[in-house]
Amino acid sequence: MKYSQLFGKPVKEDQGGSEMRSHQLLQQAGFISESVAGRYFFLPLGWRVHDKIKAVIKKRMDAVGGQEMITPTLHPLELWEETNRTNTTGFELMTVEDRRGAAFALGGTAEEMMVDVVRKRQISYKELPFNIYQFSTKFRDEARARGGLLRVREFVMKDAYTFDKDEAAFEKTYNEMAEVYTNIFNDLGLETKKVEADGGYIGGDYCHEYQVESPIGEGTFYETEDGRYCAHEDVAVFEREPVNPNDEVLPLEVIEQPDWVKTMEDNEKHYELPASRFLKNVVFRVTTSDQIIIVTIRGDLEVNKTKLEKVLNLTGQLEAATDEDLAALGTKSGFVHSWGHKARYIGDLSLTSVKNFIGGQKTETTDTKNVNYGRDFECEMLADVAKAYDGAKTADGKTLIEKVGVEVGNIFQLGTHYSGKMKDATYIDESGKGVPYYMGCYGIGLGRTMATIAEKYNDEKGLIWPEVIAPFQVYLAPIGKNQEVYDKADEIYKALLQKGVEVLYDDRQDKKSTPGQKFGNHELMGIPYRIVLSERLLESDEAEIVHRSSGETKMVPLSEVIDQF
Amino acid sequence: MKYSQLFGKPVKEDQGGSEMRSHQLLQQAGFISESVAGRYFFLPLGWRVHDKIKAVIKKRMDAVGGQEMITPTLHPLELWEETNRTNTTGFELMTVEDRRGAAFALGGTAEEMMVDVVRKRQISYKELPFNIYQFSTKFRDEARARGGLLRVREFVMKDAYTFDKDEAAFEKTYNEMAEVYTNIFNDLGLETKKVEADGGYIGGDYCHEYQVESPIGEGTFYETEDGRYCAHEDVAVFEREPVNPNDEVLPLEVIEQPDWVKTMEDNEKHYELPASRFLKNVVFRVTTSDQIIIVTIRGDLEVNKTKLEKVLNLTGQLEAATDEDLAALGTKSGFVHSWGHKARYIGDLSLTSVKNFIGGQKTETTDTKNVNYGRDFECEMLADVAKAYDGAKTADGKTLIEKVGVEVGNIFQLGTHYSGKMKDATYIDESGKGVPYYMGCYGIGLGRTMATIAEKYNDEKGLIWPEVIAPFQVYLAPIGKNQEVYDKADEIYKALLQKGVEVLYDDRQDKKSTPGQKFGNHELMGIPYRIVLSERLLESDEAEIVHRSSGETKMVPLSEVIDQF
Repeated sequence: MKYSQLFGKPVKEDQGGSEMRSHQLLQQAGFISESVAGRYFFLPLGWRVHDKIKAVIKKRMDAVGGQEMITPTLHPLELWEETNRTNTTGFELMTVEDRRGAAFALGGTAEEMMVDVVRKRQISYKELPFNIYQFSTKFRDEARARGGLLRVREFVMKDAYTFDKDEAAFEKTYNEMAEVYTNIFNDLGLETKKVEADGGYIGGDYCHEYQVESPIGEGTFYETEDGRYCAHEDVAVFEREPVNPNDEVLPLEVIEQPDWVKTMEDNEKHYELPASRFLKNVVFRVTTSDQIIIVTIRGDLEVNKTKLEKVLNLTGQLEAATDEDLAALGTKSGFVHSWGHKARYIGDLSLTSVKNFIGGQKTETTDTKNVNYGRDFECEMLADVAKAYDGAKTADGKTLIEKVGVEVGNIFQLGTHYSGKMKDATYIDESGKGVPYYMGCYGIGLGRTMATIAEKYNDEKGLIWPEVIAPFQVYLAPIGKNQEVYDKADEIYKALLQKGVEVLYDDRQDKKSTPGQKFGNHELMGIPYRIVLSERLLESDEAEIVHRSSGETKMVPLSEVIDQF
Repeated sequence: MKYSQLFGKPVKEDQGGSEMRSHQLLQQAGFISESVAGRYFFLPLGWRVHDKIKAVIKKRMDAVGGQEMITPTLHPLELWEETNRTNTTGFELMTVEDRRGAAFALGGTAEEMMVDVVRKRQISYKELPFNIYQFSTKFRDEARARGGLLRVREFVMKDAYTFDKDEAAFEKTYNEMAEVYTNIFNDLGLETKKVEADGGYIGGDYCHEYQVESPIGEGTFYETEDGRYCAHEDVAVFEREPVNPNDEVLPLEVIEQPDWVKTMEDNEKHYELPASRFLKNVVFRVTTSDQIIIVTIRGDLEVNKTKLEKVLNLTGQLEAATDEDLAALGTKSGFVHSWGHKARYIGDLSLTSVKNFIGGQKTETTDTKNVNYGRDFECEMLADVAKAYDGAKTADGKTLIEKVGVEVGNIFQLGTHYSGKMKDATYIDESGKGVPYYMGCYGIGLGRTMATIAEKYNDEKGLIWPEVIAPFQVYLAPIGKNQEVYDKADEIYKALLQKGVEVLYDDRQDKKSTPGQKFGNHELMGIPYRIVLSERLLESDEAEIVHRSSGETKMVPLSEVIDQF
């Protein structure tokens, strides 16, 4: 490709819209361009990278028998109704009606579609297992798009679906896919953690995320130092160690309290006790029923909404209560009681880790002390609804370390979550009986992966693409005014193309296209190698080859330039 | 790929839904599966073919400097409003709103999007011309989907857009792309005609369709025997030769007529004169304004609605008048007058080719004769609104031959149709002034192309894919019960894979998988070569290689099998 013909040349300034270095660079270097918030054009340079990421994934998928196919983008909504997923508000489903009134979902994930195409064919046990996948545009009607390519409203996802005859067979498939995922990300230059996670709107009993540790990530997870336990904050379990095991249980007392004591910090200051000695009440509303949930928890812990939703079987249906909700309960923020309101009370496991809590019932001028769970109040249930924290302990005494990462892929056990709900989603077993398929699904967001790589591989000058996904391998940069230099560059360009090397040839000869301009573009775009030709180099029959990532420079006889690639 | 693991095996019966042989075969052989009307899954076999068609197109596009990229699928509707295309009812646009109320079109074509991404960058004359294209899913909310993959509601289209500085530069680009198109279809085994066509909702001044002659086609076009003129029925021009040049012009007369004379056939029978001697009136309504248009035309000719819409600048806005419309005019079918109704009268050029028409005004018992255009009535205008016909003459006396074809691609001059309407869609010229880009666009429907190839290449046994797009090159079929045969097949399979040959290995050893079954599958799927191994062949150290398209069979020493591919 000649630079002069390239569409999507670098632009001078940061195009804005993100604090992320990688996102600024991707825009500035001409890889992507925003259409509207959360929707991006991939320009020719960016699409080349995207395509190469696709190729890496495809190669690994095909090597384990994966078969690429495609589903329609518009999914008949009745399929999503079969599995009740239209009611799952946590999933940002976008729907559309055609002119005949038929309703469709804009594909977010394709479990129902894949089950539908499989059930249309009579599958026998002899045809299992199989693995089908697609690369297709997925839609998420996110309330807020942000983080550049990390949280967008449409993106290409590789989604794979496996069909096995039973759990034992599936286990092998799942482990194989877990390995495929590690390999894919390794191929792409990303070290990933396989993190236990929550299935969310996908369903199924267990799943794992592939997280790349990165400060730009939105996912928090916890890992023990030995790496043997690694879990997303939505599922990470930890011990509630006794806070004051040696204290004696004292009688409940109502005490006076100055009216400036409102927040947890006020409590800590006033009583000179740590937050763990206080009761905290956090109020949620169920979006689908207007029911109120009050979670009572130890003052130093936070409620994890996903854990709570899972305990209550209300995936995606909780949100923070409003001031109006609190008023309807007859209270206000900071004065919610641990018992007595017209609400469902859920207690975190931490309630039994403290003797003589302070709090639970409170007025402007009084509070309660020596409150003990079981004696003074009880919740509908005690459950694990607290977020873990850096330094929390596991059951076997190991310490959890808090980490932040980007989720670049995920794998899900689905079991018969879909095949059990959808009519005739069965294979014929050895005895001639119809049995629901045992399924798994596996996703990778390509744009997000690309952004994560860009974030990991850059420096103050620009991007530094790993060779396997670089848009071009060579940036050919003749400099100066001497026509012979450009003639030689033409020659090298043709020879490299002939050899199948991907070259971006900066053929500009105008005055503005200085060496600084050309080298700067090369560094910004992050192409692995730069070949420099100049009048002086030509005199010594040499070219300079610069390695973008190491910065190493070497002189190579002109006659040997082609052999370097 | 082992056959046992293949998802999308052949099914026994025709899956219905189409009279087209190719469509039945594509479904039966496991290439595609219908989701709902007009929306298809491409199964692994079908997607392999689709992918190879894509590769052929990409190679030709890149060879002329085309740069692949991608636009978002959802196009901000405000862009389509900028060019007034939301009002073009002829285009089956599908729209959707997100949860924040932002409106989008589901991409049908991407002129606005491409102009939008280009205008966001400051382009100078030095960067022109360039050619950007994408392969992406397009949506058409067709009232009726039919013809298998020929008329669907979503499909992958390659759409390219060129940007030039002026018409002279564009002409070169357009001709180059015309050649690229011919080459692409030749590569795919399709002989195409480059047919002058109507731009329809795309706009622009001229365009061409690439038609493959085929009885399954929906497009009618006319070609002279020497092939120098080839035009779609919507634009084909032809001479209205004088019907009765030697007749004397006679005075207008009202005559009695029996009340059974109603249709054109009745006229011909009663007067013993050909249809060309009668006046015919065809009534249309404008969907956007309820205006009525009456076209007066020679009785042997048909009105071409697209020509009429173009003459009236009402693209996609005409439909046949209803009985209610006729009643509102004070008339009914068969009794519409060539003058006097409250309507716009448009006359076809043929009105001046006949002296002494019969018709024009008619009651149940009278008709009019010796009606002459200009003397007895006049229309708002005379224009070319008639459909050509087999045997019609061109201006230079050549005969038009009527043909039917499938439109597999099209190329459009757009000029400044889009850049002129969209704000700031300009490049900076040599003098620093902003000038609208001179554009062209170029489409190929991949599924439709695949169906057209399948229709052309099949026989009574099944499909016969050209090698360049066959899903696999070799179907490896060991037959019988001897384990040694299958061991040998395993060996050949691995050696072929090693060599990079795409093999579908029919590894089934169960009783039901007879030689007839295996050979039948091979023939149905249309894979270019079949390698047969059997106990008897093994005894003579040979394999049989069958060529699907010619049916030729040859015996090859086992040691030489791999070298054949």
